[in-house]
Amino acid sequence: MEPFYETLLREARALEPAMRARRRDFHTYAEPGWCEFRTASRIARELTDLGYRVLVGRDVCLEEARMGLPSPETLERQYRRALDQGAEPAFAEPMRGGFTGVAALLDCGEGPVVAMRFDIDALAVREAEGDGHRPSREGFCSVNDGVMHACGHDGHAAVGLAVARLLMARRAALRGRIKLIFQPAEEGVRGAASIAARGLLDDVDYILAGHMGDSAGTDAQIGFPTDATLATTKLDVCFRGQAAHAGLAPEAGRNALLAAATAVLNLHAIPRSGRGDSRVNVGSLRAGGGRNVVCERAAMELEVRGATTEVNDYLEAYARRVVRGAAAMHGCDCEVTVAGAAGSLESDPALRRRAEAVARDCLGLRVRETTFGASEDYAALVERVRGRGGRGLFFTALTPCAGPLHSPAFDFREEALPNAAALFCALAYSLQREGPV
Amino acid sequence: MEPFYETLLREARALEPAMRARRRDFHTYAEPGWCEFRTASRIARELTDLGYRVLVGRDVCLEEARMGLPSPETLERQYRRALDQGAEPAFAEPMRGGFTGVAALLDCGEGPVVAMRFDIDALAVREAEGDGHRPSREGFCSVNDGVMHACGHDGHAAVGLAVARLLMARRAALRGRIKLIFQPAEEGVRGAASIAARGLLDDVDYILAGHMGDSAGTDAQIGFPTDATLATTKLDVCFRGQAAHAGLAPEAGRNALLAAATAVLNLHAIPRSGRGDSRVNVGSLRAGGGRNVVCERAAMELEVRGATTEVNDYLEAYARRVVRGAAAMHGCDCEVTVAGAAGSLESDPALRRRAEAVARDCLGLRVRETTFGASEDYAALVERVRGRGGRGLFFTALTPCAGPLHSPAFDFREEALPNAAALFCALAYSLQREGPV
Amino acid sequence: MEPFYETLLREARALEPAMRARRRDFHTYAEPGWCEFRTASRIARELTDLGYRVLVGRDVCLEEARMGLPSPETLERQYRRALDQGAEPAFAEPMRGGFTGVAALLDCGEGPVVAMRFDIDALAVREAEGDGHRPSREGFCSVNDGVMHACGHDGHAAVGLAVARLLMARRAALRGRIKLIFQPAEEGVRGAASIAARGLLDDVDYILAGHMGDSAGTDAQIGFPTDATLATTKLDVCFRGQAAHAGLAPEAGRNALLAAATAVLNLHAIPRSGRGDSRVNVGSLRAGGGRNVVCERAAMELEVRGATTEVNDYLEAYARRVVRGAAAMHGCDCEVTVAGAAGSLESDPALRRRAEAVARDCLGLRVRETTFGASEDYAALVERVRGRGGRGLFFTALTPCAGPLHSPAFDFREEALPNAAALFCALAYSLQREGPV
Amino acid sequence: MEPFYETLLREARALEPAMRARRRDFHTYAEPGWCEFRTASRIARELTDLGYRVLVGRDVCLEEARMGLPSPETLERQYRRALDQGAEPAFAEPMRGGFTGVAALLDCGEGPVVAMRFDIDALAVREAEGDGHRPSREGFCSVNDGVMHACGHDGHAAVGLAVARLLMARRAALRGRIKLIFQPAEEGVRGAASIAARGLLDDVDYILAGHMGDSAGTDAQIGFPTDATLATTKLDVCFRGQAAHAGLAPEAGRNALLAAATAVLNLHAIPRSGRGDSRVNVGSLRAGGGRNVVCERAAMELEVRGATTEVNDYLEAYARRVVRGAAAMHGCDCEVTVAGAAGSLESDPALRRRAEAVARDCLGLRVRETTFGASEDYAALVERVRGRGGRGLFFTALTPCAGPLHSPAFDFREEALPNAAALFCALAYSLQREGPV
Repeated sequence: MEPFYETLLREARALEPAMRARRRDFHTYAEPGWCEFRTASRIARELTDLGYRVLVGRDVCLEEARMGLPSPETLERQYRRALDQGAEPAFAEPMRGGFTGVAALLDCGEGPVVAMRFDIDALAVREAEGDGHRPSREGFCSVNDGVMHACGHDGHAAVGLAVARLLMARRAALRGRIKLIFQPAEEGVRGAASIAARGLLDDVDYILAGHMGDSAGTDAQIGFPTDATLATTKLDVCFRGQAAHAGLAPEAGRNALLAAATAVLNLHAIPRSGRGDSRVNVGSLRAGGGRNVVCERAAMELEVRGATTEVNDYLEAYARRVVRGAAAMHGCDCEVTVAGAAGSLESDPALRRRAEAVARDCLGLRVRETTFGASEDYAALVERVRGRGGRGLFFTALTPCAGPLHSPAFDFREEALPNAAALFCALAYSLQREGPV
Repeated sequence: MEPFYETLLREARALEPAMRARRRDFHTYAEPGWCEFRTASRIARELTDLGYRVLVGRDVCLEEARMGLPSPETLERQYRRALDQGAEPAFAEPMRGGFTGVAALLDCGEGPVVAMRFDIDALAVREAEGDGHRPSREGFCSVNDGVMHACGHDGHAAVGLAVARLLMARRAALRGRIKLIFQPAEEGVRGAASIAARGLLDDVDYILAGHMGDSAGTDAQIGFPTDATLATTKLDVCFRGQAAHAGLAPEAGRNALLAAATAVLNLHAIPRSGRGDSRVNVGSLRAGGGRNVVCERAAMELEVRGATTEVNDYLEAYARRVVRGAAAMHGCDCEVTVAGAAGSLESDPALRRRAEAVARDCLGLRVRETTFGASEDYAALVERVRGRGGRGLFFTALTPCAGPLHSPAFDFREEALPNAAALFCALAYSLQREGPV
Repeated sequence: MEPFYETLLREARALEPAMRARRRDFHTYAEPGWCEFRTASRIARELTDLGYRVLVGRDVCLEEARMGLPSPETLERQYRRALDQGAEPAFAEPMRGGFTGVAALLDCGEGPVVAMRFDIDALAVREAEGDGHRPSREGFCSVNDGVMHACGHDGHAAVGLAVARLLMARRAALRGRIKLIFQPAEEGVRGAASIAARGLLDDVDYILAGHMGDSAGTDAQIGFPTDATLATTKLDVCFRGQAAHAGLAPEAGRNALLAAATAVLNLHAIPRSGRGDSRVNVGSLRAGGGRNVVCERAAMELEVRGATTEVNDYLEAYARRVVRGAAAMHGCDCEVTVAGAAGSLESDPALRRRAEAVARDCLGLRVRETTFGASEDYAALVERVRGRGGRGLFFTALTPCAGPLHSPAFDFREEALPNAAALFCALAYSLQREGPV
Repeated sequence: MEPFYETLLREARALEPAMRARRRDFHTYAEPGWCEFRTASRIARELTDLGYRVLVGRDVCLEEARMGLPSPETLERQYRRALDQGAEPAFAEPMRGGFTGVAALLDCGEGPVVAMRFDIDALAVREAEGDGHRPSREGFCSVNDGVMHACGHDGHAAVGLAVARLLMARRAALRGRIKLIFQPAEEGVRGAASIAARGLLDDVDYILAGHMGDSAGTDAQIGFPTDATLATTKLDVCFRGQAAHAGLAPEAGRNALLAAATAVLNLHAIPRSGRGDSRVNVGSLRAGGGRNVVCERAAMELEVRGATTEVNDYLEAYARRVVRGAAAMHGCDCEVTVAGAAGSLESDPALRRRAEAVARDCLGLRVRETTFGASEDYAALVERVRGRGGRGLFFTALTPCAGPLHSPAFDFREEALPNAAALFCALAYSLQREGPV
């Protein structure tokens, strides 16, 4: 192993206690998408202290390109809670109202621009309790009821900070620029588009991201997905009709629940595509009030997914037609809002080969091919970079995991974090010093 | 009993064998709506022989106001069968193509114009067999497979001919004009509108019609419905999509069956009205072809009904919206055709009181109040007459009936026919000689 | 006018200010069904002070026959609020947990037993604001957010207290027993059954109840409905399936929302009945959680209604079949709970004739026939009384009303209250002194 | 090229005119599945004349394992037509009633048993007309209205006869046995199971089949699909309810169309599977009769497909649940019949490598990898052979094709037929003489 890589891996592993501490801190104070005021402001403080040029707030996220925002009241309530729970006020203030992205820039002269994405938001999942769940047993369960890091983004954030520390220590060895992106609202694929649209990536040659993954009985440490993630669109639909007394004058109503029920069935019945895998799900429906009143309002949250962006587009267009038709049938209005969107994501093949070589040959990590299956907001960043001639990579940091992703019992082993941090750094070095892929 | 009425009733009863013979002839050669070439041409021949001025074909039915016509091929095939089965060629010829109405006019000088409506079509019902069914036992079952007089119109036609004979014999006693209308295509409420639109009734002061009805355990002979018939609209809907291979490229299709199934459920789910009784029925659906082909075409026959024309209009408008919305949802076209329509029908109260008095007091018949429940095409004629200041009456000729109306086992007793014929004549006489109501 | 009635009417009218004050107090502190702790305890206090033998709590409502109870948490929260808002602790305590009925008994010796029902609960309606709404203009709007007396039960309670006062003052003139029933949870037809089941009415000869009603442009003061109220059943349905990741493994889920949507459409599509008017309404549906999770749980509130108990039974049985079939289709369980039920209600014809005579001839009130249309929990009480040979009456106290019943703008004029109070008392007197009907 | 193969290919090509003549004869007299009386009896005659031991009728197809049979009337009508159109009576007679399989056996001593499957049925497609369609231009369009060889089975049958001739001429060079299977009713995957169940394949070591395919702009001659065909199940569903008059007594009916419409939507809404591609299609629905009658009967034809047999089983089980639930909801009965079924089909990898080598290296044909996509009844035969330790191969004979498979405009070039015939023979020789794969 070349000395640079050997030292890197050793130092990354020496950071494991620090990474564990940070990961557990983030886990304890889990924050949902667009509300990562505490998480993001503490990241911004640490990056600033490390010597990075740090951007936050509207300098990172373009206001009008944000999707799926909570209500202003929720944003404000979460902001105040974050301050109570230890947010850094100076950095949190410009994030107020849902601008919780952070970017850290490091200029090491002429050379390729390498960006890395670390997502930082938690999920609306109530964390498991009891001794069977390590965060509970070891005392770092989420204190924020109904919000949990059930997708490992607490680990991603900790890896990002370790990468920042390791790269700053090696700045003299680098050639080019480094951009560390700490992204809000990955869950629901809502946040990446606002970063892409802000233009921060328009000079990027390579963009890298990783995700915690289950080693599933193997001893592999790094995985490279061979499948594309599913393209997806998240839609919020609100049907509005007219209330009426269901006994005395049902004919005077316009029944939003009949419209919604028709939409639910027909959305799930959208014909499958011969051009690739597809998915439809209406995840929630909230409709009506009094039992004896014709339902006036029905709100649903749905998503479509496709193996390719083309398949996803087919589904989205069909879904919009279904929703409009169902509303029209029952004399209702309907409003459709995009609450999230991501294209299909595949690693650049050449970049992936380089990454495999670096992981296996330079760092001595155990590597395997995996599948990923779900959707990833990161697709929007890769698409932006690719559109300007750059390349993107997506890998997984593998450990034995407890519980499936997004479940209340999810947990991973923190030994995996140094491997991921080392790979990010090693790949940046390789790309800036060992030639383009 | 006044001698006029006494003689009338006696002579009507003397015609019972003739009425039975004609009724059984019509029953044997049952013809569906717009195809009554044999029935109507033989009626026209008899009316002519009796001395009436007789109109047939386009002189009775306005071409463009006919609804729910069979295909030209069916009309032609039925026309040829009618000739084979004894139609009168001279009268049938002008009826060719679905102009099977007959009107007989009698001018008795100054006085009120009294019209009577007799409907003559049969139903698409396969007649019962076996000794339990009198037409089978006594040998006058329909020879036309799948077509049956299951609504008593064979009786109505026989009554109409007896009325024609009785009135012609009494022409000297009458003052005014008589119009006997033999109407095609009452089933499906398809025929009356074309007669109304032709203008034949525009000078009519009183219009009368009757229907066979079940005396239901009573000994009543004549019934007067106290309820209104249901207003109704019959719609034919055709969804057209796009075929595609269901295995290889379902996304390339536009699925007419999904549109139709959505429409079926939502049509039946049209909210009830607080303003009066309502009905919806999709009676038939024919959709698709190959099992592995996305359905390209779906045709449905439906009807709506309402206690009032207003309720019926609410349903029709809603049904049209449902159908359009269902088509739009799945990218299909849809075509909606009115195949029949009738308003709500109620007898004029004053005319009804006169009719009750004539039936009970002048003719000595046993009278009772009844309900009718269903829809009646006759409503279009009454509406036309009423719109010009006239009055309409609807009554039932009661007998013990076998089987419900429209069932394969339906039958009535021919003893009831003379009562109906006598009442028609007596009422005409009363209205022309005993003063207006 | 007989002196007894004349004095009665005058004294009833003299109580108008007291009735207005109480009505406005109840209106201000509106309480939903089973939570009328303040209203009922203050009624119990006043009845006790008047000298009645008063029953409350489990002595009035049979625990297991109560329907549609709020959660224990809600009951407790509402109980505490009632204490804060001036409930009478001694009477409220036995009502804790949802036993908010009150009965007042007066024994005047041998003679018929006359019961009267006054319902006291409010609705989950947010009251209108602004000068156009009299309660707002005159300062007695509900202070309990989202709960409003939008059905006039505040007036019914005030009438009941005036009746109690008037009858106690006339106890010497009465012969028999008086039972005043102050009923909780009439809205949703949830409360009467528990009173009937408790057996309080099993010796009753006559039961009387009234409802505020709109005089609708006439000057009538008392109305007697000629139609039956609609029989009704209220059902809560909960579908339980299995959650799964909608992207990775939708086939592993059991989709409760597909079951619910199927049920919604098919419930509304239950065929109309030819035997009488019917209604179906799914008033609310709450389903699912995360957008990308197969929906695990869907809860709906629905009601059916029928012109007769037979029609209602047809609908309820069909609805249960729909719900079970929809669940089975998607591998879900479903639980159906009766949250309310009432039969069809018609006044006893003879008792109604007596009441009309008393109102018009003895009290000199302007009387008319009306229709009522909706459902009434009182039906359960009348059914119990009728089942033991007694008779029931339902009338309306008419005034010009603002807004339809159950709307945020509903209001009535308090001048109508004395008329109702006088009619209750006059009828009790008539029944006990002027012979049976 | 080895002399055996060189001669074989030359002689196969010399048979092209004969193959073209036969293919066009079969094309002209296209017969649907289970009705191939003319086609099969003429094949049996020719095979007998060539010297094969020939089995037909019940010796080939196990009666009770046949699926999706036409009605006895249709079978008889088609049988008579076949006799009129030149069927061989002696061979057709044992096929009467739908036993239209033919097997030809050749025993060449010790060695592997090699079976080949040729399917012979046509489709319910109305053939295109006009000069743009070669069969029309060159005068061999189907004379049987509404039936067309739109899937190339006319070519398969012609190839099979050429193979029979070529192998008989080389019998001395072979070692082992040859079984040529001419299979009925491949369309709808209805026929293979009856041949498998008959036991004819239970000693087979290798089974081979091919299909015409589009070279799609390439110059390839033989294709080897890399994907598995979709497993599939074809279901016929009949809902039976109760008719009733839709105006007078809709509550007396049990509406089979409501059940069917609910099933259609929910079938298409069966959740996609994360375990592989899936398909659902309700291809046809025939429901109801009179517009004003509650629908009594609804018959639908549907299919499900899955990337694997497991996925297909998931869909079939779900579909059965949907159908039962929909029937139960509306008080209907339902009957579900399997009208066809096939598992997923993949060539044995080793056998495929041998076939590629033989095609490319021994015969000099241009070979490529392709995808197939649809379902194939042949899967049942391969499964049977594999279950006893044998191996199966599926390849495509590529030519430029007009129109997609199953379309009225489908056509292929007959130059492809000799290649397919040569490959069958060459592979049989290789397997019997050059060692096992």
